[in-house]
Amino acid sequence: MASVAARPSGRSADQLRAVELTVDVNRYAEGSCLAKFGNTHVLCTATLEEKAPSFLKGSGKGWVTAEYGMLPRSTHTRTDREAAKGKQSGRTQEIQRLIGRSLRAVTDLTGFGERQIRLDCDVIQADGGTRTAAITGSYVALYRCFAFMKEMGAVKAIPLIEPVAAISCGIHNGQCVLDLEYEEDSAAEADANFVLTGSGGIVEVQGTAEKSAFSEAQFLELLKLARKGIGELNALQKAALGIA
Amino acid sequence: MASVAARPSGRSADQLRAVELTVDVNRYAEGSCLAKFGNTHVLCTATLEEKAPSFLKGSGKGWVTAEYGMLPRSTHTRTDREAAKGKQSGRTQEIQRLIGRSLRAVTDLTGFGERQIRLDCDVIQADGGTRTAAITGSYVALYRCFAFMKEMGAVKAIPLIEPVAAISCGIHNGQCVLDLEYEEDSAAEADANFVLTGSGGIVEVQGTAEKSAFSEAQFLELLKLARKGIGELNALQKAALGIA
Amino acid sequence: MASVAARPSGRSADQLRAVELTVDVNRYAEGSCLAKFGNTHVLCTATLEEKAPSFLKGSGKGWVTAEYGMLPRSTHTRTDREAAKGKQSGRTQEIQRLIGRSLRAVTDLTGFGERQIRLDCDVIQADGGTRTAAITGSYVALYRCFAFMKEMGAVKAIPLIEPVAAISCGIHNGQCVLDLEYEEDSAAEADANFVLTGSGGIVEVQGTAEKSAFSEAQFLELLKLARKGIGELNALQKAALGIA
Amino acid sequence: MASVAARPSGRSADQLRAVELTVDVNRYAEGSCLAKFGNTHVLCTATLEEKAPSFLKGSGKGWVTAEYGMLPRSTHTRTDREAAKGKQSGRTQEIQRLIGRSLRAVTDLTGFGERQIRLDCDVIQADGGTRTAAITGSYVALYRCFAFMKEMGAVKAIPLIEPVAAISCGIHNGQCVLDLEYEEDSAAEADANFVLTGSGGIVEVQGTAEKSAFSEAQFLELLKLARKGIGELNALQKAALGIA
Amino acid sequence: MASVAARPSGRSADQLRAVELTVDVNRYAEGSCLAKFGNTHVLCTATLEEKAPSFLKGSGKGWVTAEYGMLPRSTHTRTDREAAKGKQSGRTQEIQRLIGRSLRAVTDLTGFGERQIRLDCDVIQADGGTRTAAITGSYVALYRCFAFMKEMGAVKAIPLIEPVAAISCGIHNGQCVLDLEYEEDSAAEADANFVLTGSGGIVEVQGTAEKSAFSEAQFLELLKLARKGIGELNALQKAALGIA
Amino acid sequence: MASVAARPSGRSADQLRAVELTVDVNRYAEGSCLAKFGNTHVLCTATLEEKAPSFLKGSGKGWVTAEYGMLPRSTHTRTDREAAKGKQSGRTQEIQRLIGRSLRAVTDLTGFGERQIRLDCDVIQADGGTRTAAITGSYVALYRCFAFMKEMGAVKAIPLIEPVAAISCGIHNGQCVLDLEYEEDSAAEADANFVLTGSGGIVEVQGTAEKSAFSEAQFLELLKLARKGIGELNALQKAALGIA
Repeated sequence: MASVAARPSGRSADQLRAVELTVDVNRYAEGSCLAKFGNTHVLCTATLEEKAPSFLKGSGKGWVTAEYGMLPRSTHTRTDREAAKGKQSGRTQEIQRLIGRSLRAVTDLTGFGERQIRLDCDVIQADGGTRTAAITGSYVALYRCFAFMKEMGAVKAIPLIEPVAAISCGIHNGQCVLDLEYEEDSAAEADANFVLTGSGGIVEVQGTAEKSAFSEAQFLELLKLARKGIGELNALQKAALGIA
Repeated sequence: MASVAARPSGRSADQLRAVELTVDVNRYAEGSCLAKFGNTHVLCTATLEEKAPSFLKGSGKGWVTAEYGMLPRSTHTRTDREAAKGKQSGRTQEIQRLIGRSLRAVTDLTGFGERQIRLDCDVIQADGGTRTAAITGSYVALYRCFAFMKEMGAVKAIPLIEPVAAISCGIHNGQCVLDLEYEEDSAAEADANFVLTGSGGIVEVQGTAEKSAFSEAQFLELLKLARKGIGELNALQKAALGIA
Repeated sequence: MASVAARPSGRSADQLRAVELTVDVNRYAEGSCLAKFGNTHVLCTATLEEKAPSFLKGSGKGWVTAEYGMLPRSTHTRTDREAAKGKQSGRTQEIQRLIGRSLRAVTDLTGFGERQIRLDCDVIQADGGTRTAAITGSYVALYRCFAFMKEMGAVKAIPLIEPVAAISCGIHNGQCVLDLEYEEDSAAEADANFVLTGSGGIVEVQGTAEKSAFSEAQFLELLKLARKGIGELNALQKAALGIA
Repeated sequence: MASVAARPSGRSADQLRAVELTVDVNRYAEGSCLAKFGNTHVLCTATLEEKAPSFLKGSGKGWVTAEYGMLPRSTHTRTDREAAKGKQSGRTQEIQRLIGRSLRAVTDLTGFGERQIRLDCDVIQADGGTRTAAITGSYVALYRCFAFMKEMGAVKAIPLIEPVAAISCGIHNGQCVLDLEYEEDSAAEADANFVLTGSGGIVEVQGTAEKSAFSEAQFLELLKLARKGIGELNALQKAALGIA
Repeated sequence: MASVAARPSGRSADQLRAVELTVDVNRYAEGSCLAKFGNTHVLCTATLEEKAPSFLKGSGKGWVTAEYGMLPRSTHTRTDREAAKGKQSGRTQEIQRLIGRSLRAVTDLTGFGERQIRLDCDVIQADGGTRTAAITGSYVALYRCFAFMKEMGAVKAIPLIEPVAAISCGIHNGQCVLDLEYEEDSAAEADANFVLTGSGGIVEVQGTAEKSAFSEAQFLELLKLARKGIGELNALQKAALGIA
Repeated sequence: MASVAARPSGRSADQLRAVELTVDVNRYAEGSCLAKFGNTHVLCTATLEEKAPSFLKGSGKGWVTAEYGMLPRSTHTRTDREAAKGKQSGRTQEIQRLIGRSLRAVTDLTGFGERQIRLDCDVIQADGGTRTAAITGSYVALYRCFAFMKEMGAVKAIPLIEPVAAISCGIHNGQCVLDLEYEEDSAAEADANFVLTGSGGIVEVQGTAEKSAFSEAQFLELLKLARKGIGELNALQKAALGIA
């Protein structure tokens, strides 16, 4: 991979930020994980609700959903509190829908009864990549929630088909780079978020040209970077969960 | 391209629905286009506003933005009116942000002064692919608006860098297909929306696995279908605009 | 009738605009009608809902209700989208309540079970008289909906007592005129909307002095004009419905 | 006038309820009036604001506007507080628009500078006819406000062209009656609100068939009743204001 | 008690304003009281609802709750209508929560079945101390409501343990004073609201230093004033209710 | 102090939970403090805004304000996200108003120009006493913000008059206890929050009888406990700030 320009952080083009996934950080939640991708810190909690959404009534299936929020001063300059403004922004809704879809893609919805698990992803500090940290951490929180349910006898096996994680890639100064921090992201020519499964399947891909259109070759290079990063994230998820 | 299963519409896998783009359908708007993709009908109007958003004040640059809505009975079963519910759904906001980004990607924002052009995309009838019809029609409405401005002497040249159009592709019954109608879309294993420029650059790509993850090979096949479809849409846009 | 001043449109004082009522324009609705009064175009759809409002539970009666909206660029200068503003204006609510009352006045609410029919009146283009076009078109859409229900065996007979239609009249340059377009309406001294039944009964009358009070004699002249116009509208409704 | 059936209140068909108009009931408002029509009590206050609405900037003209509300237990059974529900009902908005139009129709908007007078009409107790009591009382409050401004030297003369008052009429048990109380109103076949000037001009007329359409003859009888009642209200307004 | 500075009203430091409590002022409510503390007038109505809140279902217990509002021109300068703004202010919510807690503290919630009594406290005119007038008047309205229920046979005895009333005290010009009117309140160094029972128990105390912190000795002097004032209010409550 | 019953935590009646105040925990805020009172964790950030609220324009004075929020799963059972519900609860508004008033009471508002400092208090985990932890931590965050401003040359001296801190006390099983955790709080007969300055002045006191009224003697015992606790909190604040 070319490395013409130095990245602001000094990282190589295919290098993740320091990632830490800490489980069980919340005293009350059935599952939780604090996901740190460098200075981006997202607290993910999984709440077990004994009732599935009404559209699943009688189906025998459960649901996984997500909500997302940012603390007002998680950002460089303060962002107004959505509760005070009286509504969630389009960006917030877009992100929480993405998190929910990503997790459902690896969950066996027939495997835990007519229940709902609600993932709350709250950004304590933001430095780019909050949605990818949220997905990566939510998988861990969701796993812990299912582990708790298994212990309680509510499920026989953990109904997760395979791991899922997410990472952002982008074109910055003409170079394809992995896991952009805010400074890079805000100056990027294009950025793309990838949500991949442990076996390499694509769950979601969202690519956006910020300044001008990008080529298929560039897109494939971004995907290659994502595969490398997500492989590393999967390993960290397993380590955090203490599973082989 | 494999063609194992017949499509519900009898179309071949790489065949668009009948597309019609009709310009100047609205008596008042500075530009307008009714985009029909089969039974999906989207009315796109472009409104010229003499004031750019405040964050551009003094920059000499203009802005292009979009709003999206569905008539309550544009859908198979009636959808509640967002004005009556008091808020726009996450889906609506996601789509209108996408339309705005797509159009801005091919517009020279320095080329029409500190003004704003607002694209309203209203779905009169929906049968899948409303967002891609909206983008495709909005390009035409935006072009007509700039042509009007040129005639009025407000701009010297039409500040559009190249055409942009959008199409959906998906995996249906294991087969990659182009331009899904509602029946196919709701049963698809995966679907992806592509926004491409006239020269083939990628402006936006959004792929979602509805049932299970898809592979890189499948994704590339979807992109190939999109290229074919968007080439045809570009030709229809030019014909509607009466430009070579 | 005096005809001192020419009307902006060149119409005679008691002349309707060109009116077109086209049925079954929407692929999904149980009944629909596109009502054009000159440049005013209102799309009316009737949606059959199998549940009546809760206040009718157990009464054996059904309900007819209406919603009204304007596309943002249906108007000369763009009107903000009510869904984006988060609420419907007082004018919108006033109009949709009027439409609902007008249709219920000619419907046998005991004749179609505990169901609800919801009329959506969406203004595609506005040039004055949108509420009267909406009522006139809604009658046609409602009739088509009942015809559909009859065909399905849900009702034995169409539970409409008689036709209903509406027209605006006004005093413009001292002259009483029928069916004002926007240019006349905005300069009128007074305007009145009449909702009359096929047999000439008054269902609703709303007269407003815009500049100064008007006399009883003037009011009666407006009513006379309305009777003439509504007679013509009733004939057009029958023609559109293909009934004698 | 026929008088076949006794009215619930024992009043004759053309008899108003006991009406009391008391001025200066509020310690702070520039003008105020408590209007009692039998058991309907509406508190009307006029607030002088030194700024006209922005659409009048530079016009030299002022504005008169109105707001309307009901105390939760002004009604037989409690009505939910609109502030708690977070929005004003369509009925509330319809009424406050009517009050504003009615008062503007008799005000010389060029006669008090670029100011706004805001009328607040709050229903303390409701027994039918709250909107007509609100208009009748608002005229008195507005007059008192202008009198205050005259005393302060803000206007040379009271910029009111003539008095305005309002009354409801209706068809009850087949009989045309004046000033319906709640019991009559809720059982009426039709009802109409009339807003007339002191010289007999029509400012607003709103007639609604509640059960079936009514005839022109009936409508004219209602108007005749209204003329009689409003004549009496005008006399009471003058007495309350201490003007000849 | 020191009396260094004259109060704006000429009252002595420990003197209430003229207080009037009038029962049964509302024609429809199950209980009502108009509470006047000088120029502060609060209309309190009690509405009996046959259903308790859902969290009490099956408990055999009832609930008492309160809502509070101000008429727009109850204040020196007009306050925007909360229904028009679409939400209740923090102050409004704080006050209505306080009223509800205060009344529940003296009500035997097991003594009137699974019902709810809703107190509406609407400020007709405000001159300081609206929340204390609201609590004092609400007790009377609630008592009247229970008396009505007893008469109807819905309760055997009035389920009120003892009276409750409230008063404000404050430090003004360095002097501790009772029952502040607006002029004093807005210039006070500190103010405190006390809610006490007939037997002298403390139900609520809310003290706030407006300019600088106050001492424990000052706080105790305020409490002493409150005891004197509330003793007088209890006597007036009994007189209004016609109980010994 | 009597110690009849053991507290659930085993603490003595006048013993605080383990309190930790950590400064500068947020990378972006001008001042920040994570306040832990046992299992109650509140993140306090101070944001400097260069503009004061409009009511201070031209006064030369600044303002200190606060916002408060709880993460959805900060509580034992999940609390709905206020941003999703579209409004802040009455409790939230009550608390944020309290925090703002408390901090303003010890700030020299003339000492930092026409600026505003906004304190965001976000509850990461709740176990009783979140508002008192928020006030105690906000003082530290505010101090750090002023220290930053002093370093930047924006102020000459830190415009804080004296420290402020807050603690809850309550009556539990008949015993007066300090710093209630959730388990105690939810079973308490009464609870009171005290906001005191470093020199012992009372800034705010809010006492509420949860079950039955309490006596003056009990109230004074609660105040005595609060004085002891707040003395300890002041020492911890100084230590965290590294000031004598």
